[in-house]
Amino acid sequence: MSREQRAKIDAMLRTPRPEGPRPVEEIRSGFAAMMATMIVPDGIRTTTVTLGSRRTLLVEPRDARPRTGTILYFHGGGFVYGSPETALSLTGNLVARTGFRAFSPDYRLAPEHPFPAAIDDALAAYRALLDAGEDPSSLVFAGDSAGGGLTVTTCLAARAAGLPLPAAIVAFSPGLDGTRSGESMDTKAGLDPFFTRESLAHTGAMHLAGQDPHQELVSPALHADLTGFPPMLFQVGTNEVLLDDSTRMAARAREAGVDVILDVTAEVPHVFQAFAGVLDEADQALDRAALFLTQHLGAAGTPAASAS
Amino acid sequence: MSREQRAKIDAMLRTPRPEGPRPVEEIRSGFAAMMATMIVPDGIRTTTVTLGSRRTLLVEPRDARPRTGTILYFHGGGFVYGSPETALSLTGNLVARTGFRAFSPDYRLAPEHPFPAAIDDALAAYRALLDAGEDPSSLVFAGDSAGGGLTVTTCLAARAAGLPLPAAIVAFSPGLDGTRSGESMDTKAGLDPFFTRESLAHTGAMHLAGQDPHQELVSPALHADLTGFPPMLFQVGTNEVLLDDSTRMAARAREAGVDVILDVTAEVPHVFQAFAGVLDEADQALDRAALFLTQHLGAAGTPAASAS
Repeated sequence: MSREQRAKIDAMLRTPRPEGPRPVEEIRSGFAAMMATMIVPDGIRTTTVTLGSRRTLLVEPRDARPRTGTILYFHGGGFVYGSPETALSLTGNLVARTGFRAFSPDYRLAPEHPFPAAIDDALAAYRALLDAGEDPSSLVFAGDSAGGGLTVTTCLAARAAGLPLPAAIVAFSPGLDGTRSGESMDTKAGLDPFFTRESLAHTGAMHLAGQDPHQELVSPALHADLTGFPPMLFQVGTNEVLLDDSTRMAARAREAGVDVILDVTAEVPHVFQAFAGVLDEADQALDRAALFLTQHLGAAGTPAASAS
Repeated sequence: MSREQRAKIDAMLRTPRPEGPRPVEEIRSGFAAMMATMIVPDGIRTTTVTLGSRRTLLVEPRDARPRTGTILYFHGGGFVYGSPETALSLTGNLVARTGFRAFSPDYRLAPEHPFPAAIDDALAAYRALLDAGEDPSSLVFAGDSAGGGLTVTTCLAARAAGLPLPAAIVAFSPGLDGTRSGESMDTKAGLDPFFTRESLAHTGAMHLAGQDPHQELVSPALHADLTGFPPMLFQVGTNEVLLDDSTRMAARAREAGVDVILDVTAEVPHVFQAFAGVLDEADQALDRAALFLTQHLGAAGTPAASAS
């Protein structure tokens, strides 16, 4: 049955689209329309706040008092499209499953604001949480796609700025290589229903605006030293040209002595967790992510509480 | 605090031992004595049964009625030492955390019974469970070290015999390369408090008794095609010469289109899960393994049950 679910979603995502690079506004509205079809779980409420200088969506459990723990979530969209609202099925599911609250900043996008504007805003959001008294040991970074990349690069930027690091990192199908040099860029071409090398080059050029992709904040899978990083969880599908962004980043994490889980689901597309409620693998992956977050935030994962 | 726990356990394991290859009986009694110090959780009961033609330890929740689900567990010990009793902290923790029952067969050991005696016994145990009416979709293979290798090779043998495959595989620090060719054999030498290339060669020679290590049932990390395999979870520490047995097997699983989680904990030794109750990372890893088993056995992992 789940194999059928996987095939159905793949077919849906292959709905014919206009060929060739599309204008930015068309990309943005198309993505927003697609993500609006994803299921946002019951049991959450959203509020608009300001973090750093950016509008930020605060996502909290609706009824219960939130458990101590904060997720700083970075939405996906190639640094060009997407918003806190397009990622709401993902933040909502993490909040509903953990009882933690999530802040999802509306960081600046390219081409209007190229690299490193997104990282600057992400770091400003993190700094604002720390300045407000958040304990970094109760705070994690999570994100999808380009936002998955931000979980790593914002942590690098925080380390460079002398800030304490968050307690954990969770990245769904992260983009971690602005040079697009992973083997999966070729081996998964055609299998990936979302991305082609050309479509990634199109948004990537807007993001970099001529800047060098060979730097750790653009291509951490190639250049970052993760020494001292908190435990990391990468979840990725095998039908992704970005698969090897995760496999290479996980290898670098292992070599740097970081706790790292590389969690690969076969025959699912980019950020398949957004299909929670429709695809069993999505719900199961989110449950694993929730357990990982719970283990690294607060006391819920300690032996006394978890052993039966 | 947990970094301290990791360092303490490493120091303990480095207690001086006699240099050079030791007689089989000394290896067996030494290992049994060490594993007898591990904490077996409350809330389980054990019974001796026969599976295939081998004595088998049945481990069940003591009070509750077991949930539908059976773990076929293969203990570690380089195919030369160990028993269902030496692995009881591991099987007990999986049973206590999942509510499933576990069968842990006392498979034949080398040098008295070299390769493929252990696989023959493991396959016979699996066949006995199927013959008794067990649904393979409610049955998983789990194991540690050499027994972690058996989770994979018994599945290969089952596929070759035309049997249905189990629902999932969980392997703690599996041995998956009888040629000892992983990079970690060198890069982790000295960091690994348990194994050296020489100690593994000593037991490996007893196991193979001159047979070729270049075959998929001895070195699946090099030679096995995992196409059609069920979801797999590999948990391994970075202080292990066997680390790359898992990294290479996980890569082969990804390439074969298998759901696979490579779960790496830094600065912990071989089969660190045995230190549950003493080392936080051990309990957390077992909780992740329990969730994985629950997701792939029975209905407990379906969206309706897990989403809050």
